[in-house]
This record gives sequence, structure tokens and C-alpha cells, in this order.
Amino acid sequence: MPETFPTKPEVARPTMIDVARRAGVGLGTVSRVVNGGHGVRDETAQRVRAAIDELGFQRNEVARALRPGKKSTSLALVLGDLTNPFYATIAKSSLEVAGQSGFAVVLGSVDEDPEGEKRAIQELVSRQVAGLMIVPDQGDHAFLQGAGVPVVFVDRPATGIDADIVMVDNEGGGKLATDHLLAQGHERIAILLAPSYYTIGRRLRGFRRAHRAAGIDVDESLVIQLPEGNAEAAEKATREVMLRADPPTAIFASTNFLTEGVLRALGELGQEPAVVGFDDFRLADMLPTPVTVVASDIAELGRSAARLLLDRASGADTRPPQRIVLPCGLIERGSGERPPRSAGERNPR
Amino acid sequence: MPETFPTKPEVARPTMIDVARRAGVGLGTVSRVVNGGHGVRDETAQRVRAAIDELGFQRNEVARALRPGKKSTSLALVLGDLTNPFYATIAKSSLEVAGQSGFAVVLGSVDEDPEGEKRAIQELVSRQVAGLMIVPDQGDHAFLQGAGVPVVFVDRPATGIDADIVMVDNEGGGKLATDHLLAQGHERIAILLAPSYYTIGRRLRGFRRAHRAAGIDVDESLVIQLPEGNAEAAEKATREVMLRADPPTAIFASTNFLTEGVLRALGELGQEPAVVGFDDFRLADMLPTPVTVVASDIAELGRSAARLLLDRASGADTRPPQRIVLPCGLIERGSGERPPRSAGERNPR
Repeated sequence: MPETFPTKPEVARPTMIDVARRAGVGLGTVSRVVNGGHGVRDETAQRVRAAIDELGFQRNEVARALRPGKKSTSLALVLGDLTNPFYATIAKSSLEVAGQSGFAVVLGSVDEDPEGEKRAIQELVSRQVAGLMIVPDQGDHAFLQGAGVPVVFVDRPATGIDADIVMVDNEGGGKLATDHLLAQGHERIAILLAPSYYTIGRRLRGFRRAHRAAGIDVDESLVIQLPEGNAEAAEKATREVMLRADPPTAIFASTNFLTEGVLRALGELGQEPAVVGFDDFRLADMLPTPVTVVASDIAELGRSAARLLLDRASGADTRPPQRIVLPCGLIERGSGERPPRSAGERNPR
Repeated sequence: MPETFPTKPEVARPTMIDVARRAGVGLGTVSRVVNGGHGVRDETAQRVRAAIDELGFQRNEVARALRPGKKSTSLALVLGDLTNPFYATIAKSSLEVAGQSGFAVVLGSVDEDPEGEKRAIQELVSRQVAGLMIVPDQGDHAFLQGAGVPVVFVDRPATGIDADIVMVDNEGGGKLATDHLLAQGHERIAILLAPSYYTIGRRLRGFRRAHRAAGIDVDESLVIQLPEGNAEAAEKATREVMLRADPPTAIFASTNFLTEGVLRALGELGQEPAVVGFDDFRLADMLPTPVTVVASDIAELGRSAARLLLDRASGADTRPPQRIVLPCGLIERGSGERPPRSAGERNPR
């Protein structure tokens, strides 16, 4: 736990770079002078000290900035594939909040590999970070209980540890998407599920709840569990389900990558069931039929996590573990507003 | 400069987590025991030591893993907006390579803000990293000359410092795109330019070279310098140029975001000049007219930079500053293969 908590530096405050520039030396030289001046010529050292004084730079501030093993001003962030815009958005927004408080972020990116995730977390804990933000993979996270630093989970809770969690309302979002399709008369709605993350299970729960509320039975053959969470798996499953004798008239894709796969398959088949995706994605509005999605503020997910973690690390927040849930909204663009008849016409029973 | 250079750990080697689990304690307790055992009950400490011995864990390896101020096993990466897939791809691939050598990556993400970039770099240098990978913003980087750690620039060189650079063949790519349009008979090709990065200047050079080689004059009113590098600026400029009395029959968009803006404007206008974009992007093949692009292996850009930096940090590579240039290729998908007549038909002179 850090003893002191840096506050946001003022933009106009002189930096080490200003000192280096004023003295006409490099950053490394400033560092060496502040740390005792070994290996620096007297004349140079004098110039650096003069620059520090002239700029009103607090020398012990420089020293602090240069001290190795700065447990107090790094956060760790462990998440999945950065080329998934979902993770990139979390990384970007949490970095911004951390940076505003003078914290750097050490990144661990591990894609669907629980053992790799453990190694990454161990690595990061050993680097004396002030706290951990983790988008957890599956598997037990009890080993974190004794890590000695605060942990905030992002997007999904972990098992085996009671810690802060910032997430979106997955069940509400799943219900919203399904309600929307049901309201347009769809009664045979397929749902494509990525491998069993907590989030996907909740979205399925919302799907079932919406059906119950509408008094419509879920056809279990349309609840499709994919072996992998990528577009290819969704493309294959969509092709199969749409070629059945009794295809669905609507599809709910439970992640952004799955939505892409669904649309690829439908493009090939020339079929147009209604489609709603979970999570918005870039260019969704520019596709031949603009894509209706359930979406939440992913950037806020990252910001909330970083804020909470900083408050934990500073000791400002000593409440029991919190659960922050962000709402989902529906963005209607066209694909989710197709009536049920279109599929029926193509596939007359 | 690190004294020793960690090699890739074997997957089967026991980890600190295994020690913690075997002893039935948290990671923090293992850490305290290895660092002297202060604040840990004797019985617990004994259990941890026994677990370390049983697992064949080298105690000094644990100690090394826990020692603060580990200058030798962190790299810094400074780049732009992570939600730009270009930067996310570089981050992901360089992280992978660093991780394989036991290096963590501390991230600084700063979008088009030279002062912010300097502060981020200063912050990271003060964290005693073994080396810096930087996608440099504009402005002088001479202050890095004395940073005391190796620096590799990615995607574009920086001024004021002679250091390694890994980049793509921007001029070749610009020529390739333009050659392709000229070969189809286009003589009035607009080029949209993001604010003056080095890369964009080179792409323009390729554009001019292709025209010269074909014996066709560049209409300077079609060389369009945008005030900002986002899709909105490109959308506005495209609208303006297409509504001129003598519009271009083809457009070369010099970045992925600009290509998006061009397509948005053309969709609204209902016009179809040929379009080639620089850099591929997700869903480019799924748009109403699939998008032809000039592309390079961005992941390899990140991998090459990380490999080179690790070799510099370890002292394995002592050559003078290197310049690694990756080739560009053309991906034909439809938008770049439209003949010149279509625009002419819509806008008869």
C-alpha cells in the first residue's frame, strides 16, 4: 500500500525534460546528478543543479520521480486480445484516468489462456504495482487473495476472491435485445453463445427471461453454444442453423466478433433474418444493412475501474468490495427491425 | 543496461503461485518470507520455505522475481490512441515478443499531443525501464539522446536523435496505390492527407512519383491537406471535392480513419469514384463495395521493434542505428477497380 498518493500534476509545472533542456544535457545525466552525481563531471552537475533551482523544481520531487522500485505509482492491467476493440477501449480509458493521477500502467495481455493469465499476474505482482485491474479469464482466482495489493475486476467477476467489480448489465442487455425482437413478432430467435464466460451466461439469462415474460417457449435447438468465441465459429453455426428445415427468423449474437460472423454467413446465404448484436463496433452503421446492437459505455467501464482502484490504493476508499453495474441501451439501425416474415418467405414450411 | 538477460521461461517450471498454493498462503506472504519474513508468523514462514523446497523452486529466483526496481525486465511503449486498430496491433504484437523474453511492458498512450508525449516518456524513463519503443509524435526528440536506455522508433523516425527505426515502405505503398488507379485510366485522382506526419509525406511522395512515371500532371487542387486526421475531416473534404464542377474520378485516402470518412461521404452523395485506402481495417471486405487497400504487416512492425529493442537492451546487438523497412502490398476488393467513367457519367462536363 503506498504511503503517499500523488495528485494530478499541474500542466505548467516544469518537468525533468525542462531541466535537461535548460542544462543542455540528457535525461540520464539529470538522473545521475540527482542520485549523487556519480559519473558526471563537476561542471555538468553544477549546470544541472542550477537549472533545477532556476526552474523552481523541487529537487526531492526529481529524486522521487527517479527512485527505482516505485511501488506506489504503477497499476497493472491484465486483459485479453488488444486488437479486440472492447479490450482496447478499456485499456485506453483506464490509462487516461491513471495518467491523470500520475500513475503508469503495466500491461498484461493474455487471450483465453488461464495459465498464461496466472503467469502474467504473478509477473505483475512481483513488479510492486499499487494495484491490479483484471478482466479475468475463467478459473479460480483465489491465489490473488494474498497478493497484498487491491484488485478490481473489470467486465466479469472472478471466482475464489471477493473483490471490487465493475461490469455492464449483461442480463438486462440480453433481455433488451430479445424483448426488441419479440416485440416485432419473432418467435423463433436463435442465440449464439461464446464459450462460457460469466457475461455470456448472463446474456442468455436475459434472453430466457424475455421469452418467459412474453409467454413464448425457447426452442433449445436455437440456443447454440459455440466451441470458440471468434467470427469463424459464429459464421459456421449461422450457416448450419439457417439451412435447417425450420430456421430461426431472428438471431441474437452475444459478442461483437460473433455478430461479424453471423453477418458474413448471412451475406453468403443471401438470407435476412433479423439480427441484434451485443456490443457496438466500428462501421456497424456502414454495413449493407446497418446493425442494431445492445451497447454500453465501455470507456466508462475502464474509467470506473481505474478510479476505484486508485481510491483503494490510496486508502481513500475502505468500503467492503463494491459492485458497479453500468446500464445497456439499444441502438436501432435496421438489422434488428426486420419482421419475421422475410425468413418464412424464403423457407416456406 | 541489464546485467543478465532472461530467457523464455519453460511452461512447466513451478511459479510463485504454485508456492503460494502449496503453502496455503497468498502471494504477498510468499513475498514477505522471501524478503526476510517480517510480519509473517514463524509457522507460516516455515510452510512457505518447505513449499519452495518441495517444488524445487530456486529461492534466489523468487527473490529476483520480487526485487523492486527491476530495471532489466520492463520495456516502455509509447504510442497513440489505442482504439485505433493500428496502434492496438503494435501494442499486442510487441507485448507478445517482450513477454516471451520475460519482459513486461509499461504503456504510455498519448494522442497527438507532443507535450503529453514528452511527459509520458519522462515518466517512463524515470521508471528504470530497459528500453523504449516509441511511435513518435511530431516535434524534436533530442531530449532522448541522454536517456541512458536504448530507444527504437516505430512507424516513423523522430527528429533530433539517431536511433533504430522500424517502419513500413510508405513511399512504395503510396506509389502502389496510385499506380493501381492510374493503370485503370484515372487521371484525376484526389489524395487526402492527414496532418503532416512523416508517413503521410512519404505516401504523397509515392503518389507524385507514380504520376511522374505515367506522364500525368498532378492537379494540385486535388492534393487535400486535412486539418485533422479523423474520419469527420475526411468526410467533409470528400463532400466538398466531389461537389466541385470537376470532381476527381478516384480518391486515395492516406490512413484507415480517412478511408472511413471518404466512404461515409460517398454513401451520402451516392457517388462512386474509385477508392483505395492506406492500411487495411476490420470489415473492409464487408462494406457495400468492399474496399481496396494498400497494407503492410502491422503486427510484424511491433514484433520487429520489440525484438530489436530486446537485443539492444541485452547488449547482443551493438550495430549502429538500424532502419528496418517492411513492404506494402495491394489488396484488391472492388472499390479501387472502378473505371473512371462512373464519376464522369454522374457529372458530365
